[in-house]
Amino acid sequence: MNIALLGHGTVGRGVDGIIRARVPEIEVTRILELPDRITDPRMTSDFGEILADNSVELVVECMGGIEPAHTFIAAALAAGKHVVTSNKAVVAAHFAEFARLSEEHGVAFLIEASVGGGIPWIASIDKVRRIDEVNSFMGIMNGTTNYIMDSMRREGLDFDIALGRAQELGYAERDPSADIDGIDVANKTIISACVAFDVDCIRELPVTGIRTVTKRDLDLFSSHGLMVKLFGRGVCKDGRYAVAVEPVAIPMMSLEAAVPSNFNLVSLEGVTIGPLKFYGQGAGSLPTGNAIVQDVIDVSHGRRQRYDFSRGLVYDPSLMVCDYVLRSTVCPPHADAWAPGAWRVRNLTAEAARKLLEDVWQKDPTAFMAALRQEV
Amino acid sequence: MNIALLGHGTVGRGVDGIIRARVPEIEVTRILELPDRITDPRMTSDFGEILADNSVELVVECMGGIEPAHTFIAAALAAGKHVVTSNKAVVAAHFAEFARLSEEHGVAFLIEASVGGGIPWIASIDKVRRIDEVNSFMGIMNGTTNYIMDSMRREGLDFDIALGRAQELGYAERDPSADIDGIDVANKTIISACVAFDVDCIRELPVTGIRTVTKRDLDLFSSHGLMVKLFGRGVCKDGRYAVAVEPVAIPMMSLEAAVPSNFNLVSLEGVTIGPLKFYGQGAGSLPTGNAIVQDVIDVSHGRRQRYDFSRGLVYDPSLMVCDYVLRSTVCPPHADAWAPGAWRVRNLTAEAARKLLEDVWQKDPTAFMAALRQEV
Repeated sequence: MNIALLGHGTVGRGVDGIIRARVPEIEVTRILELPDRITDPRMTSDFGEILADNSVELVVECMGGIEPAHTFIAAALAAGKHVVTSNKAVVAAHFAEFARLSEEHGVAFLIEASVGGGIPWIASIDKVRRIDEVNSFMGIMNGTTNYIMDSMRREGLDFDIALGRAQELGYAERDPSADIDGIDVANKTIISACVAFDVDCIRELPVTGIRTVTKRDLDLFSSHGLMVKLFGRGVCKDGRYAVAVEPVAIPMMSLEAAVPSNFNLVSLEGVTIGPLKFYGQGAGSLPTGNAIVQDVIDVSHGRRQRYDFSRGLVYDPSLMVCDYVLRSTVCPPHADAWAPGAWRVRNLTAEAARKLLEDVWQKDPTAFMAALRQEV
Repeated sequence: MNIALLGHGTVGRGVDGIIRARVPEIEVTRILELPDRITDPRMTSDFGEILADNSVELVVECMGGIEPAHTFIAAALAAGKHVVTSNKAVVAAHFAEFARLSEEHGVAFLIEASVGGGIPWIASIDKVRRIDEVNSFMGIMNGTTNYIMDSMRREGLDFDIALGRAQELGYAERDPSADIDGIDVANKTIISACVAFDVDCIRELPVTGIRTVTKRDLDLFSSHGLMVKLFGRGVCKDGRYAVAVEPVAIPMMSLEAAVPSNFNLVSLEGVTIGPLKFYGQGAGSLPTGNAIVQDVIDVSHGRRQRYDFSRGLVYDPSLMVCDYVLRSTVCPPHADAWAPGAWRVRNLTAEAARKLLEDVWQKDPTAFMAALRQEV
């Protein structure tokens, strides 16, 4: 099977290398690159050429960003080409459109690498759903923020130092806001909900990142036997669903608390299978390249995953209620003291908690808040 | 597709129920049962009837034990029927024969449920190996022993009390030796090595269980920041491989240490994918039934996994060398004091460690030994 790569950065080069070394039945015959980076006879800067090439059966999109990725993916599907992508931003924004196009044109649209890097997360959810229903999922889906909080706790680093190290190691971008404000995790949470619950998930979910967390916050939770991690979560029950991204305090003796460095851990709970958890590298050229190549091979073996979002689930934030701990100089309404300078607010939805935090930030922009979960 | 079940115990009934509720395209038309348990028109106590029924395309073996399971599986494969089994004992004993028969007769032989219950472990290894090589694996593969050691540590129970509870909960058999002496884990380790390394794995690997572990042993390791778990392990390097089953002391802040109750966690390390870890229910009617039904659906979608063991790997115990801690009244040769009543012996192969423990048991049958691993 002949395939084209859109983008030849870290991930694209990983895909190219793995296919050349390991998958003789598949050949990368076309690569879309910027005009000033054409270094290989397979390369072109004209997407129209790739689209018009009938020998290209599958397009791997690993450019990132919304446009022109969205236009290229839609055009490839409409032209009857299978699409495999690692681009969480464009999938989260346009999943329903891509799913409809793939259905209409009888081609595959696979997205393993868009969530959890090399972890077989999307394919595992798809497989579970053949005979089971997913009640909930939750995951440490962003390696950069896990690295930051892990090194703050293990080595006693301040947030800025830990972030600087993550940037030096290439885990974090120079503008780290997509990671530390939870935007990356929000995209992955939307995609996971689409796949796990078969719903065209809302885009305007409550999202809180870790920008205001301090070493002292982590010590405070630690003295209560708790560890804080940034989670994407989803719940589905009785025809309704809810999703959220926020810091969550979990028991120290849990798998989630033990996730080191920049690794990811994603979990689902099925009706008959019970809990399943998957751990691995959430990013990087080879793990992400690996996930893309697995999708490509699956397509060549005939896999055509369908997502039609026909269950008609209703978004209902009241499905997701927790106690929250707020560390702030401001005492929020209806709160109990939890520790010096920290308050416990009971039974908030993730949406109400986000609203409360925004109110508190008006007076105390350094405030930090985490959901409390007794079990994970 | 019409299928037959051999055995209608806990697992067989789970498979029957899941298929009826969830998989309309597959029907259980025949069930092998003992003569005095025939309660259903699909049931027969004559395997020959099932073998002669050309409408049965696939046989699910969930009887357990070596014979007659071995004879029935071999006969079904030779008759051109696909086979799916959860029976680790018979697979560990006859994997190469079953693989050869499935190849010769062009049928599938799938074994997901034989290791890790509902965890997608075998299929994940198979998938990784399409484009990668597995360097090593290790796993908490027996829920009963994990339950025993977890409740000894969390609740301060003695071994016998914890074992009694595991028996009350149905996790352990009345004769618990297959679990606590490591025999169950040995079978799962052999199967994992066959699949991960593509080798007809030796049966005579070093196997040590947890029969002599005490609450005080776990406290002693705990005071060194370590937790003890029973692991099956395998390593593959430069055309050689090694396997072993033994208690291993691992850092308290590791995923492995956090595995609660009767859950399993199995890990592999691939060349390009890095570490992947999978967690879930290692036993039980619905999780194990789930794994079997997934294999059945995979067969109906055309999956034909081949294991030909043609790499010619050589067994080499020197690949697996560790320091060991021995708690005993006997001081072994070349040992350093590690703690009062406990010794550290450096750089032993798993085989040499097993031999040493057998020697020590001649004088002190209560002795307990665990491998020391700084990282997992």
